[in-house]
Amino acid sequence: MPAPRISPGLAPGEVPGAVTEELRDFLESRRAAVARVDPRFTAVFEALAEFTLEGGKRVRPAFAWAGWLGAGGAAGEEDPAAVFRALCALELVQACALIHDDIIDASDTRRGRPTVHRRFELAHANAGWRGDAARYGQAIAIIAGDVALAWSDDLLHESGLSAAALARARRPWSEMRTEVLGGQVLDITAENSGEGGVAVAERINLFKTAAYTVERPLHIGAAIAGAGPEIIDAYRVFGREIGIAFQLRDDQLGVFGDAEVTGKPAGDDLREGKRTVLVATALDRLAGSDPAAARELDSRLGRVREAADIDRLTRIIVDSGAAEAMEAEIAERTRRALASLGRAPIEPAHRGLLERLAHQVTVRSL
Amino acid sequence: MPAPRISPGLAPGEVPGAVTEELRDFLESRRAAVARVDPRFTAVFEALAEFTLEGGKRVRPAFAWAGWLGAGGAAGEEDPAAVFRALCALELVQACALIHDDIIDASDTRRGRPTVHRRFELAHANAGWRGDAARYGQAIAIIAGDVALAWSDDLLHESGLSAAALARARRPWSEMRTEVLGGQVLDITAENSGEGGVAVAERINLFKTAAYTVERPLHIGAAIAGAGPEIIDAYRVFGREIGIAFQLRDDQLGVFGDAEVTGKPAGDDLREGKRTVLVATALDRLAGSDPAAARELDSRLGRVREAADIDRLTRIIVDSGAAEAMEAEIAERTRRALASLGRAPIEPAHRGLLERLAHQVTVRSL
Repeated sequence: MPAPRISPGLAPGEVPGAVTEELRDFLESRRAAVARVDPRFTAVFEALAEFTLEGGKRVRPAFAWAGWLGAGGAAGEEDPAAVFRALCALELVQACALIHDDIIDASDTRRGRPTVHRRFELAHANAGWRGDAARYGQAIAIIAGDVALAWSDDLLHESGLSAAALARARRPWSEMRTEVLGGQVLDITAENSGEGGVAVAERINLFKTAAYTVERPLHIGAAIAGAGPEIIDAYRVFGREIGIAFQLRDDQLGVFGDAEVTGKPAGDDLREGKRTVLVATALDRLAGSDPAAARELDSRLGRVREAADIDRLTRIIVDSGAAEAMEAEIAERTRRALASLGRAPIEPAHRGLLERLAHQVTVRSL
Repeated sequence: MPAPRISPGLAPGEVPGAVTEELRDFLESRRAAVARVDPRFTAVFEALAEFTLEGGKRVRPAFAWAGWLGAGGAAGEEDPAAVFRALCALELVQACALIHDDIIDASDTRRGRPTVHRRFELAHANAGWRGDAARYGQAIAIIAGDVALAWSDDLLHESGLSAAALARARRPWSEMRTEVLGGQVLDITAENSGEGGVAVAERINLFKTAAYTVERPLHIGAAIAGAGPEIIDAYRVFGREIGIAFQLRDDQLGVFGDAEVTGKPAGDDLREGKRTVLVATALDRLAGSDPAAARELDSRLGRVREAADIDRLTRIIVDSGAAEAMEAEIAERTRRALASLGRAPIEPAHRGLLERLAHQVTVRSL
C-alpha cells in the first residue's frame, strides 16, 4: 500500500498509517549502516524495526501535526512532508521509552508480543548460549532503546526541515525528553519509596504523560510553524489539561476496563498494583470515612488475582466516590483545555482537528 | 579556578580541564529544568553530574579538537569556543555508554567509586525502601544514561555552532553513535555465544573503540571545519589505525599491567575473562603449537584469582608469541596512521598535535 501523500489536507484517519510509512522509510535508510557493523547488529535492528512499526497509536505525532496546522504552519515555507517526517521522530523517543520501561517493569509482553528484552532472552535460551539469558536480554534491550533514542535525533535532523525551524524545535524537543525521563525517575522512585499520595501521582502524570504526550508535541509543532507566545501558551495549557485527562481516562480503563477499546481486561491496574491518581484519591477519601476499606485497598493492591477479589477492590474504589470524582475531573480539565484553545488565534480550519483529538484521547477511542 | 579561555592556541595539556569546565557549565544550565520536575530527579542529576565531571581522560574531545585545528578550522568563521563546546558533547555520549555498560557488565566500581546503578542500589538499601534494591539501581541507571544521551544532542545543538556547521557534523555524529552501539551489541553477543576468535575481537575493536574514540571524533572536527575528502579520508584511516592500536595497548595493559599509568593491577583482564585480540591471538597460535596450553588458557580465563594462577596464564600468553605480535601490530598500525596523516594537507602548525595524541594513546600516558 503506497503511503498517502503528505499534505496539510491529510485526513486525520490517515495520520497513523502515514507515520508508520515514514518510520519504515527512515529505518530502511539505516539498514546499510547497521549491516556494515555486523549481522548480529542487524538482528537487533530487525527487532527494533518490528517493535516500532507494528504497533502504537501515533498519538504524539498526531498532536504535533495538529499543532503545526493549527498554528498556521501550512501557510509558511516549510515543506509539509519534511514537517511530518520530523514529527515522526517522537515515535522513536517513544520506542526507547517503552523498551526501557519494559526492562524496568520486567514486563513479558507488549501489544501481545514478547517485549524486546524477553525476545533476546528467548533467543539466548534457544541457542543454548553460555551465561544468563535474562541478563543478555536486558543488555540487548538497553542498547536497542539507546539506538532508538539516538536515531530520534537523526530523524528530526534529516527530515528536511529548514535550519531555522530545527533551531526553533530544539528547545521544546529538549524539554520534552528531559521531562519524560524525569517523570520516569519520579515514578520509579515513588513506587520504591512507597510515596503513593495523590500529589506524587499527579506529578508523575504531568511529566510522564501530559508534557510528553500532548503539551510538548503541540509545542514542537507550533515552534516549527514559528508560532508566537499566544498560541504556544494556549497549546501548553490545553496540552497539560488534555494530557492529564488522558491519563485519568487510562487509569479508569485500567480498573473498570473496556476490552473493546483497550484490549485490557478490567482490573489490570489492580493486579499490577499501580498507585494511580484514582487509587490514591480513593485511599485519601476513605482515610476519614472508612479506614478499614482504605487499609484493605492499600494492603491488597497488587496482590489480587481472582475475579472476586478484583471485584471487591473495584467496589471499594467506586464506593469511595473516587471514580466519580475522576470523571468530573476529566470533564473539567477537558473544558478548561477547550477554553484555552478557544481564546487563541488558532487556524479556524484546523481548530476542529485539535478538538477531535482532545475528545478521542479523553473519551478514549484512541 | 577559572576555565582557560578557549582559543585555537589552547595548550594541549589544558584541554581535559577545559572540557570539564564546559560540561560543568552545560550541566548547570540544566539544573533548573530538572528541579522543576522533582527533587528526586535532582538526585539523579547530581549523580550524573558527578560521574561526568569527576573522571575521564577526555580523549574524544581532544581528538576532535585536534581534528578541527588540523583541518584549518581556526581560519574559518566558526567561533572556537562554540566548536570546543560542541565537541564536549562527545563526553555525554561517553557518560551514557559507561553507565549502561556498567549495568550490562554488573560492575561495582568505576574510577574507584561505586557505579551509578550501585550507588542507587545502596541508596535504596540505606533508605529501607520496599522492592528489590538492585533492580531499582539498574532502573535509575538506565534512565540516567538516557538523560546523558539525550543531553549530548542538546549540548551539540546549543553550542553556538552555525547551522551550516551543525548540518555538516550530523552525519559523522550519527554514524558514530550507531557504530558504538553496534559494537556493543557485537561485544555482548559474541561473549554470550562464545565466539571468541580474533576476527570478532578485531571487529569489536573497530566499532566499539576505533570508530568511536578516534576516527569519528576526528571526522566530526573535520566536518565542522568544512574539510574536503582529502583530509577526511586521511583522518579516517589515521583514526581507525590509531584507535585499534589504542585498544591493543589497552589489552596489553590489561594483562601486563602498569599500575602507574592505568591504575589497573596486572592480570585484570585475565580475572575478568576478557576475550581480547591478545587472548584470541594467543589461543590461535597455541592451537597448533601447544594445544594443552591453549586448553588451559581457554578454560581458566575468567576463573583465576591467585597471583600464581595469573602469572601462569600471563606466561602462556607471552610464550605463545602473542604479546610480541601485538607490539609489532601496534607499531605497524601507528606507522600506517602517521603515513596517512603525512599525505594529507593538514595545517602544519597542528600536525604535531595529532601526532602527539597518537603517541599518547598508543604508548599510553593518556
